[in-house]
Amino acid sequence: MKACSRIDKARCNCAVVGVSGTTEASRLAYLALYAQQHRGQESSGIAASDGRHLSRHVGRGLVADVFSDQAVFATLSGHLAIGHNRYSTTGASHLVNAQPLVANFREGQFAISHNGNLTTSGGLRRKLEEEGSLFQTTTDTEVLLHLIARSREQGLVARIQDALRQIEGAYSLVMMCNDRIFAARDPHGVRPLCLGRKDESWFVVSETCALDLLRAEIVRDVEPGELVEIHDGKIESHRFAPPSPRHACIFEFVYFSRPDSRIFNENVDRVRRRLGKNLALESPVDADIVISVPDSSNTAAVGYARRTGIKFELGLIRNHYVGRTFIHPQQDMRDFNVRIKFNPVKGVLQDRRVVVIEDSIVRGTTLRQLVSLIRQAGAREVHVRVSSPPIISPCYYGMDFPSTNELIAAHKSVTEIRDYLKCDSLAYLSLEGLLKSVVHDQDGFCAACFTGNYPIPVEDDYSKQVHESL
Amino acid sequence: MKACSRIDKARCNCAVVGVSGTTEASRLAYLALYAQQHRGQESSGIAASDGRHLSRHVGRGLVADVFSDQAVFATLSGHLAIGHNRYSTTGASHLVNAQPLVANFREGQFAISHNGNLTTSGGLRRKLEEEGSLFQTTTDTEVLLHLIARSREQGLVARIQDALRQIEGAYSLVMMCNDRIFAARDPHGVRPLCLGRKDESWFVVSETCALDLLRAEIVRDVEPGELVEIHDGKIESHRFAPPSPRHACIFEFVYFSRPDSRIFNENVDRVRRRLGKNLALESPVDADIVISVPDSSNTAAVGYARRTGIKFELGLIRNHYVGRTFIHPQQDMRDFNVRIKFNPVKGVLQDRRVVVIEDSIVRGTTLRQLVSLIRQAGAREVHVRVSSPPIISPCYYGMDFPSTNELIAAHKSVTEIRDYLKCDSLAYLSLEGLLKSVVHDQDGFCAACFTGNYPIPVEDDYSKQVHESL
Amino acid sequence: MKACSRIDKARCNCAVVGVSGTTEASRLAYLALYAQQHRGQESSGIAASDGRHLSRHVGRGLVADVFSDQAVFATLSGHLAIGHNRYSTTGASHLVNAQPLVANFREGQFAISHNGNLTTSGGLRRKLEEEGSLFQTTTDTEVLLHLIARSREQGLVARIQDALRQIEGAYSLVMMCNDRIFAARDPHGVRPLCLGRKDESWFVVSETCALDLLRAEIVRDVEPGELVEIHDGKIESHRFAPPSPRHACIFEFVYFSRPDSRIFNENVDRVRRRLGKNLALESPVDADIVISVPDSSNTAAVGYARRTGIKFELGLIRNHYVGRTFIHPQQDMRDFNVRIKFNPVKGVLQDRRVVVIEDSIVRGTTLRQLVSLIRQAGAREVHVRVSSPPIISPCYYGMDFPSTNELIAAHKSVTEIRDYLKCDSLAYLSLEGLLKSVVHDQDGFCAACFTGNYPIPVEDDYSKQVHESL
Amino acid sequence: MKACSRIDKARCNCAVVGVSGTTEASRLAYLALYAQQHRGQESSGIAASDGRHLSRHVGRGLVADVFSDQAVFATLSGHLAIGHNRYSTTGASHLVNAQPLVANFREGQFAISHNGNLTTSGGLRRKLEEEGSLFQTTTDTEVLLHLIARSREQGLVARIQDALRQIEGAYSLVMMCNDRIFAARDPHGVRPLCLGRKDESWFVVSETCALDLLRAEIVRDVEPGELVEIHDGKIESHRFAPPSPRHACIFEFVYFSRPDSRIFNENVDRVRRRLGKNLALESPVDADIVISVPDSSNTAAVGYARRTGIKFELGLIRNHYVGRTFIHPQQDMRDFNVRIKFNPVKGVLQDRRVVVIEDSIVRGTTLRQLVSLIRQAGAREVHVRVSSPPIISPCYYGMDFPSTNELIAAHKSVTEIRDYLKCDSLAYLSLEGLLKSVVHDQDGFCAACFTGNYPIPVEDDYSKQVHESL
Repeated sequence: MKACSRIDKARCNCAVVGVSGTTEASRLAYLALYAQQHRGQESSGIAASDGRHLSRHVGRGLVADVFSDQAVFATLSGHLAIGHNRYSTTGASHLVNAQPLVANFREGQFAISHNGNLTTSGGLRRKLEEEGSLFQTTTDTEVLLHLIARSREQGLVARIQDALRQIEGAYSLVMMCNDRIFAARDPHGVRPLCLGRKDESWFVVSETCALDLLRAEIVRDVEPGELVEIHDGKIESHRFAPPSPRHACIFEFVYFSRPDSRIFNENVDRVRRRLGKNLALESPVDADIVISVPDSSNTAAVGYARRTGIKFELGLIRNHYVGRTFIHPQQDMRDFNVRIKFNPVKGVLQDRRVVVIEDSIVRGTTLRQLVSLIRQAGAREVHVRVSSPPIISPCYYGMDFPSTNELIAAHKSVTEIRDYLKCDSLAYLSLEGLLKSVVHDQDGFCAACFTGNYPIPVEDDYSKQVHESL
Repeated sequence: MKACSRIDKARCNCAVVGVSGTTEASRLAYLALYAQQHRGQESSGIAASDGRHLSRHVGRGLVADVFSDQAVFATLSGHLAIGHNRYSTTGASHLVNAQPLVANFREGQFAISHNGNLTTSGGLRRKLEEEGSLFQTTTDTEVLLHLIARSREQGLVARIQDALRQIEGAYSLVMMCNDRIFAARDPHGVRPLCLGRKDESWFVVSETCALDLLRAEIVRDVEPGELVEIHDGKIESHRFAPPSPRHACIFEFVYFSRPDSRIFNENVDRVRRRLGKNLALESPVDADIVISVPDSSNTAAVGYARRTGIKFELGLIRNHYVGRTFIHPQQDMRDFNVRIKFNPVKGVLQDRRVVVIEDSIVRGTTLRQLVSLIRQAGAREVHVRVSSPPIISPCYYGMDFPSTNELIAAHKSVTEIRDYLKCDSLAYLSLEGLLKSVVHDQDGFCAACFTGNYPIPVEDDYSKQVHESL
Repeated sequence: MKACSRIDKARCNCAVVGVSGTTEASRLAYLALYAQQHRGQESSGIAASDGRHLSRHVGRGLVADVFSDQAVFATLSGHLAIGHNRYSTTGASHLVNAQPLVANFREGQFAISHNGNLTTSGGLRRKLEEEGSLFQTTTDTEVLLHLIARSREQGLVARIQDALRQIEGAYSLVMMCNDRIFAARDPHGVRPLCLGRKDESWFVVSETCALDLLRAEIVRDVEPGELVEIHDGKIESHRFAPPSPRHACIFEFVYFSRPDSRIFNENVDRVRRRLGKNLALESPVDADIVISVPDSSNTAAVGYARRTGIKFELGLIRNHYVGRTFIHPQQDMRDFNVRIKFNPVKGVLQDRRVVVIEDSIVRGTTLRQLVSLIRQAGAREVHVRVSSPPIISPCYYGMDFPSTNELIAAHKSVTEIRDYLKCDSLAYLSLEGLLKSVVHDQDGFCAACFTGNYPIPVEDDYSKQVHESL
Repeated sequence: MKACSRIDKARCNCAVVGVSGTTEASRLAYLALYAQQHRGQESSGIAASDGRHLSRHVGRGLVADVFSDQAVFATLSGHLAIGHNRYSTTGASHLVNAQPLVANFREGQFAISHNGNLTTSGGLRRKLEEEGSLFQTTTDTEVLLHLIARSREQGLVARIQDALRQIEGAYSLVMMCNDRIFAARDPHGVRPLCLGRKDESWFVVSETCALDLLRAEIVRDVEPGELVEIHDGKIESHRFAPPSPRHACIFEFVYFSRPDSRIFNENVDRVRRRLGKNLALESPVDADIVISVPDSSNTAAVGYARRTGIKFELGLIRNHYVGRTFIHPQQDMRDFNVRIKFNPVKGVLQDRRVVVIEDSIVRGTTLRQLVSLIRQAGAREVHVRVSSPPIISPCYYGMDFPSTNELIAAHKSVTEIRDYLKCDSLAYLSLEGLLKSVVHDQDGFCAACFTGNYPIPVEDDYSKQVHESL
């Protein structure tokens, strides 16, 4: 447990889901979480309502593990459900912080799943505590619960609107009271949130790949500044903030979202291929083969290979069985952490001049080991091409980057990074090349991690906390 | 999860403990809970503080099971600890309700263990919820946390006093903030709470048998209406209510406390022997042997045998391995529930006229089966003698009795009960005989379960809830 | 895993059960094991057969824990079942050794539960291994399985008889092939084994208290040297050895069996009361109260009190929640191991001259602590009376005594033991007094632990192993 | 438990490992099993020896789960270790059958890990049972243990050779006695088995990808008919059978082995790419894109795309989080089983003529659903190309194919299969094309699943069992 007033800003980009209008609500929420597992593997949870009572089940680990027991779904009965996958690499991940959070209001019970980060929650929390509010968790999400509970407005919609107007940050929210579901997205539209439908059922998901699994159709995004109320098979749109310039997270395209999803009205796969193509245009190289760091760089690598005409090959095999509790050997084994995940295919790499496509470089430690592995497998030359610009600033809106002093590009020039990686050449995609890869609304993105320009205010102690704690 | 504003009054008489001034605080709290296991087997928990941070571990089941892993104590470090054993027979026993409860105040963290029942908490909770307080549990204890958090008084002691003045009911509390421990007892002194000491360490326990195990000495009871602050090896006494007539629970002597404890300044064992002797004086019988329903009636049975001169025998063997998860046979087995717990000793009972001493009769179902078992074992006559008066009213102050319509003595005369039990004769101890068994302060007791006279106000919906839900 | 040819003679007196002729066979076996839990708490297991297939479930811990999941019984289907409770205090208690053992013969599957010790199994095992037999466990029981499998006789009954003739030792066996159950008892009749019946169902149990729980009636003991075959609702008696002098274990009466059981045609309770009375006749003392070390000495204490006329009191309260995984305090707490189990009742002991009845003294360490506890509680004098003679020799037939050099009476005189215990006086029951307490067949007992005269041959390396390993 | 004499031929192609000459033997065995996880996910186990004692740990599930607790390795101490991953899709997968199997011989303990199937073990087992051997498992591997135990030869090597000469089938074995490790491969060399080395340590693995992770170098294959003894840092080669024509399993190249492994002296990746190229030569098609069914068909798809010049695209995203305990929705969801694993990328497939490369077709049910999914995603045409010939016969040597009547190609023509799959065209690689893809020793392969010609004798009841039970 952390000391009072401290908010454990997990910088977590997570997955949220809401399901309404089906007797299998909790099972479908489970499937939607499963399809969005890549957005959070630390803990998972579902809250369900049968119109009168809320029930909840949360646990650590993968969705399939947390809900491995059929019997859980009998306790999560009802036609409404919301869920959450939590992504966190911080050690202090207490189950008490697992979402959905549930609390008792005077009108009844209320549950909330939150993706993003509230950037002024520390001050709000201090103020609430001074007024006698009790906090159970160290999440910023709980601040929102208190603001809704304390609002003087009449009616739940008005109280939620009132609360949302008091907070700043990046958030995509799915909420549930005993008889309905709400979805809301911050006025900047930083994180994705999409409405789907199948027959009488409505769905809210972070990524559309979850709708695909449920065989539901995409209806539309929840708009920035919009609060959607889902009740009795109908949706009603409320606004809590006027239209403001969109600042969707460009890094969702670069790395975080699944290529088969459609977010911010773009197919991720298509954007990602264009990243590879634009990278090829900007930084071609004379080489024999193009390989990808699987799986997140596959699409960009195919794009790069296509545009340059160099052969695409499968040069690294990824072991998908790596789990959390992996036991390491006691003796020091060089490159072990990367070898346990990737094995080079010698027959492919031997005597070749290799272009390695990587989606982004954070610290550079893994990539350095990979370059070494590829060389040991016999590659004659190793050229690294990165399908995004250098990351020079931390993210305050949910992406789990380390603090500035651990970001390699914040301190080293491209030449220095090339020397560190020990590759023969290194090139990043330019910011222009990045933005050009998006078809619509190229101005509507937050690229703060590449530029240092933060579109949403951040309170001092939060930015300080990010810098120190990481 | 229950609906809003509903308080799950578990009618739980529980065990509490506080430990201060030893680096082994959480381990000693564990031992004290273990010694008080008879006061609650449903769940168990400990919160500890090292002066700066609080940590907590709770779980379902027996103390030894909840804390079976040594490693838990490494996380419960510090020189302060409080603990709780929860007694509950209600199905809706969610782990979220497990104590100690912990919350974040503006001054820091705060933990609380509560034995008893707050009898006006429903109205308080509704009021707090209307003012925007969020509730996480359905316990009445959480109301108290909110009252402390919201108090306008200066300083933690004043705020606790302020909060305690707003509540009614029976309660023995142990509380902990980051650097000290508090103990408080309701102005009526319904439940026991005792201070102990060993070297530099202070202890607060429900029953002194816990002090015996810790080799600590009894210092004194926490007084009714007193708030004790334990800090830096010293205790400081505060009052939050003026002296009022004591109403200690007489049923603690009849059944609940361990015979080797000293509560309300009396040895339980000695009172219980007198119950047997007074019963013998009031209701002797011509018989061959006296047997007890082990173990709670053993002492009274020895007293009865001594005074009547009839031989005391061990006529029933109790199986102590009965667990919660016991699997029953599928076929209907008559008397199974009592047979699994007790086996009659045929060699003792055959052809004898038997007096069975039982401490109290609630529903009468178990005793009826026991009488039948004793007859099947060959007893010629079975005379039941009860070492307390007929229970005619439910308890609102913590004892887990059923509602009035399940209390056999609320609806049947002694003759009718005798017929129901199918025993040859039946006699209860009189109320006078009961009170005479106590040496000091015979007026200072609550005997509402035997008389229907409730000394502490109870809000309507609570008494209604007790009557309905049970 | 132990080295080859080593047999882990657990010196385990255990509980066995067989159930035949009911669709609830495995559930009734479970209840019978539960009633015999006192005979073994280390592991528990059941094998069941539906006439064609055997299934098995074993686990560590108490019966109720091993079979806490209802679903287990669905896998243990069929009208036949045998079970086992294993008692072992040795550290090397591998689950692979848990019983019933199951193996595949050419005729089908075969399961066996064994109570006792084979005293010549080491040599047999070596011989079998030289002939190419594979051993899976380190139990002596597995030797018997191999002997049955390798017998050249025709038919399973003849092969079991053949195998039993090759072994020596103390054993009560329950065995099961796909369609029937067998029970056998060594020619000396060391351990109890009893047949029971209810309607069409037959039962085999170690102690009759299990029959009581099942509402079955006692039919008769399995005779020494008899092999009983239970099939199709009938029993058939075979002999594998001629009648020989019985050597039933007298220590079953002194301590091991439950007082409500009937073994060797005697009520345990009655014998135990006589032990107390004869002890009173031999060694009276001028004192105020008689107390027992609960629960095993209760009956003898009542007998002693009755005969001397001294008041019987409950001076020690036993905590029945002591589990295996109990966490100890780190600081050294004097007498902790005995205090965690027993708490003295000060009100009873203060200023009294106390007689403490104990059933037997093995090492003396616990009793020494108890005497100290009783003195601390204020007793003026403490007189120890033991309801059996001094234990001077280890048991090779199943009782878990330590080696000779740990048996206090093997090295010290009664006066020296009294000094060690720090009691005011000490007296043991004489061997004559012990044997006189039994009504029938006073010559038919093994009292080797009190006399050193072993009626059944023991191979050298076994007796050596007992002396060394313990 | 199965009935007597029944051998549960799991048709399991598994992973084995042996490690010698390092104090971290069990940890390195763990890593080697981890790298070979794709060869078996049902259970995993390791046995270790410190020269005097063997210890063992086995469990169900993935390697990382079975060995998630560091403490396990403390019990698996010693410089020798062998391990096993078990692949089984049959329901009757009892933990008792988990490998390595361990037994006690007269010389000491012996452990064995087995990959493959013994094709005459049923008769051998019946014979052994008639001679009185006890079986604990239903695996064919246990037969081998008994044959070694019963051999009349002198010395362990001679006894193993003697036993191996009595068995028929496909097997790659790693064995361990207290002080050394053995590796053996059947005279036909059906399954891979490779020797590796690093400094003083020797390794035996099924696939070389495990040596890569350990940073060990490939030394050579264990030869068909060879028994290798590893002791004191040296290897000694023994033969138990004369050289016979090799019949290595061609299906290891088609599907089972990892592409980064080298088996049978060929790089799997290189063979697999040639499969794609030869398929392109034999069955080109006019289309817009080539996609793979990830991940096993990726390499062949790249080969096919390269040779035809059609663009390679990532048209299906595979979800790697699918676990064993996945909870399905209750309502019938069409294509659910395939959708949970694969999601089509609409932006890639829409309006395209698609070639889908699949490595093999067994039942066809999954592929049929995939074709449907691809069409729903908007593909204009779907052409299936299979990089191996039609599977018409079951495998008796370890590959987990179903019985003949479930193999779609055993009953349907290519045209009929195309109609069943609902694809626009379908073509298989020819047998010649398959064999041509291997560079060396194209005659030395078993292709019985494609031809029905079985090079190793199979006893009647085994082939019958395969046909019936599946």
